[in-house]
Amino acid sequence: MSAAHIERRRKLMQKLRGTAVLIAAGARVPRNYRANTYPFRASSHFLYLVGRPIENAMLLLSDGDATLFVPERTTDDALWDGPGLANEELATLTGCKVRTLEHLQDALHGRALATLAASDTITRDEQSRLLARAIAPLTYSKEDEALADAMIELRLVHDAQAIEELRRAAATTELAHRAGMSATRAGVRESDVRAAMEHPILADGGATAYGSIVTVHGEVLHSNDYDGTLAAGDLLLADVGAESVGGFAGDVTRTWPVSGRFSPSQRAYYEVVLRAQKRAIEAVKPGARYLDVHLLASTELVKGLCELGVLRGDPSELIAEGVQALFFPHGIGHLLGLDVHDMEDLGDRAGYAKGRTRSKQFGLCYLRLDRDLVPGMAVTIEPGLYHVPAIFSHPELSKLVAKHVNQTELKKYSDVRGIRIEDDVLVTQTGHEVLTRAIVKEAGDVERAVGAQS
Amino acid sequence: MSAAHIERRRKLMQKLRGTAVLIAAGARVPRNYRANTYPFRASSHFLYLVGRPIENAMLLLSDGDATLFVPERTTDDALWDGPGLANEELATLTGCKVRTLEHLQDALHGRALATLAASDTITRDEQSRLLARAIAPLTYSKEDEALADAMIELRLVHDAQAIEELRRAAATTELAHRAGMSATRAGVRESDVRAAMEHPILADGGATAYGSIVTVHGEVLHSNDYDGTLAAGDLLLADVGAESVGGFAGDVTRTWPVSGRFSPSQRAYYEVVLRAQKRAIEAVKPGARYLDVHLLASTELVKGLCELGVLRGDPSELIAEGVQALFFPHGIGHLLGLDVHDMEDLGDRAGYAKGRTRSKQFGLCYLRLDRDLVPGMAVTIEPGLYHVPAIFSHPELSKLVAKHVNQTELKKYSDVRGIRIEDDVLVTQTGHEVLTRAIVKEAGDVERAVGAQS
Repeated sequence: MSAAHIERRRKLMQKLRGTAVLIAAGARVPRNYRANTYPFRASSHFLYLVGRPIENAMLLLSDGDATLFVPERTTDDALWDGPGLANEELATLTGCKVRTLEHLQDALHGRALATLAASDTITRDEQSRLLARAIAPLTYSKEDEALADAMIELRLVHDAQAIEELRRAAATTELAHRAGMSATRAGVRESDVRAAMEHPILADGGATAYGSIVTVHGEVLHSNDYDGTLAAGDLLLADVGAESVGGFAGDVTRTWPVSGRFSPSQRAYYEVVLRAQKRAIEAVKPGARYLDVHLLASTELVKGLCELGVLRGDPSELIAEGVQALFFPHGIGHLLGLDVHDMEDLGDRAGYAKGRTRSKQFGLCYLRLDRDLVPGMAVTIEPGLYHVPAIFSHPELSKLVAKHVNQTELKKYSDVRGIRIEDDVLVTQTGHEVLTRAIVKEAGDVERAVGAQS
Repeated sequence: MSAAHIERRRKLMQKLRGTAVLIAAGARVPRNYRANTYPFRASSHFLYLVGRPIENAMLLLSDGDATLFVPERTTDDALWDGPGLANEELATLTGCKVRTLEHLQDALHGRALATLAASDTITRDEQSRLLARAIAPLTYSKEDEALADAMIELRLVHDAQAIEELRRAAATTELAHRAGMSATRAGVRESDVRAAMEHPILADGGATAYGSIVTVHGEVLHSNDYDGTLAAGDLLLADVGAESVGGFAGDVTRTWPVSGRFSPSQRAYYEVVLRAQKRAIEAVKPGARYLDVHLLASTELVKGLCELGVLRGDPSELIAEGVQALFFPHGIGHLLGLDVHDMEDLGDRAGYAKGRTRSKQFGLCYLRLDRDLVPGMAVTIEPGLYHVPAIFSHPELSKLVAKHVNQTELKKYSDVRGIRIEDDVLVTQTGHEVLTRAIVKEAGDVERAVGAQS
């Protein structure tokens, strides 16, 4: 595995022309007390350049050399955590020189260094101490800015090893969704389906790439409750993705009927979302602007709602007024890589091309990506339609609702709360490849996958 | 559920005689970037007094009143996280007054307050700001000390609601171990068994109480790797516990043969550990000193190894030299409650009675509890025998090994790496109750539970 990482480090150093770089792996974070931690997850920047999660390690790139500084292992460590890798083995596996952390301060010998803030405060404090300046998220020195931009340039375009990892994450994510559809039947709880979905992810040796959403309340966009019971008439929305052992994310949403049969109203909405998703995926190709993909999907959704009679008026005028956000209040997707929202630790610097900034408009303000697509980028495409009480009753937005929504028609779709369909899409030289295409999404296929087992 | 929590708050205020108390629920912690967090786990002190995990909330006990200060909910929150509970509902469910956090600073109006440091730094910074003094783990003002002691006094003796929660955790933990034994067969990976064990825990709606240990390398005490493949001759050690929805921990270890049959050497070691565990459990009763339970188990283990011929010499002399720690390097167990090592955030103040401190001796230095047992305490009893390379090759300890270990006999047991048997035990008025007694542990029962499915 180290060849890819050696090449990444070489490219990074080349871009930075001699600036030394310190990248921290990060530390374990306490759950309820210091010795009871969450599972360790190394910084994505560190994983990108080293390929292995090594707690508390620091990577120094300097004068063309890559050196890993690692904690010295005590007898206590060996007793509680096992023998671990010898530094020589680690050197062979990573292609880095390996030294213990006690030598790091000397190795820095007061030179100007670029770094990126770790996500945990213990490591950030250590970075601040080593560099003798305050290190905080989204706060950069001139060197840090150059490093952030160089990392973004590299990580935006996935190399062969990264694509292989994304494929692995997609394959495990497929197992999860297949298991979820199989486990669905009226009377079980959301937590039962969640457990069935996470089982193959844990079995694969990875973790979920983000907190799973498995809910009959699809209109709660980031629901992390699992205590609802599935009723026969419900739709179940599952937004669940595996993280590969190497740390790359899958991110897939499917929405399926608990009974194994969509009601006519559910199916009508579902087909609108699916059509919008397919059109948006078709638009993914080199040179396409991601904002346009978002607007295309929005237009398709509005057209669909007009055809159903739920929205009144001319689709393009409705779009101009922002009516789509009443039913589709989030962005069409985001970058995908080692983070499920790739490089979101660097803020919109990663997601937005230079000179572009987030809109202030409701809905569009949640769009996490506005770049022109290039081969090697991976993005999600995830349109949805939702009936969100907080939107329909919102003091401002409810005026738009009153003006454009046909309440009589809307009531016919009251057995829809939220539908989202999301896939992971790689931009190729000639267009795109849907990495998660093995996960069924045609209404009939979804019904069969649920129904066969219930 | 609120009656128990109202009573706990009343008792706490009574013990503190008028000192006001601020208890923080804690904040979500980033995994790889700010918006991608680990699952939220509220502070155990907060859960003990409030019964519900409420992110970023603060509980103020003052002048006989309990007031929950909660974040104000924005439209954004409603969109992404759902409507949540209205403050009136929360007040009814918890028996607290409920106000928004913006009113907290005024409510404190400069008075002396006791608090306990949250485990996350964001919350600790907020505590420091509100109290205008540095709040850090294990660093107490006089008021904080009184609060810590009062919380310990309360939480040491589980009330009926806490015992009910511990029973629930034990019941789910049983499902996990049953599933683990069922899923075991040669050729599958540790991660497959781990996934099978965590499935019923997730399905129940809770979480694991700590990072699961599922390993053929039982001699690595806190192994968190799951990538090993199970071979027919291996023992699999599984230390896996469920956390109840209310936040209370189960903590159980079983060790079983992958093939469904212990080899004679494995079975001989297993019976030594099991006998020591049973003797130790028998010793759990009101008035017993936990250190003595540890020493009793140590003696039984040494006796067993002498009978097998692995150790040479007189058991009581071996114990006096600390030889037990060569094979049993950890403590016999710890407090169990809302934390798997209950109240370990308060250091040995919780685990050690006043006037008692940790031994410096290898092995004994890891004993987390030395109190006289009283009815209502819950503890684990978890003896083990391990062949730890880091101990056998340790510069100091290897002298003890050379002196007392019969290498010829030891070699006969080389298919044992580590065996631990752990149960959760409640001290009752007349003796004890094993909360996890439904989980099989007789060698024959374990063989059947594994073998029936392989």
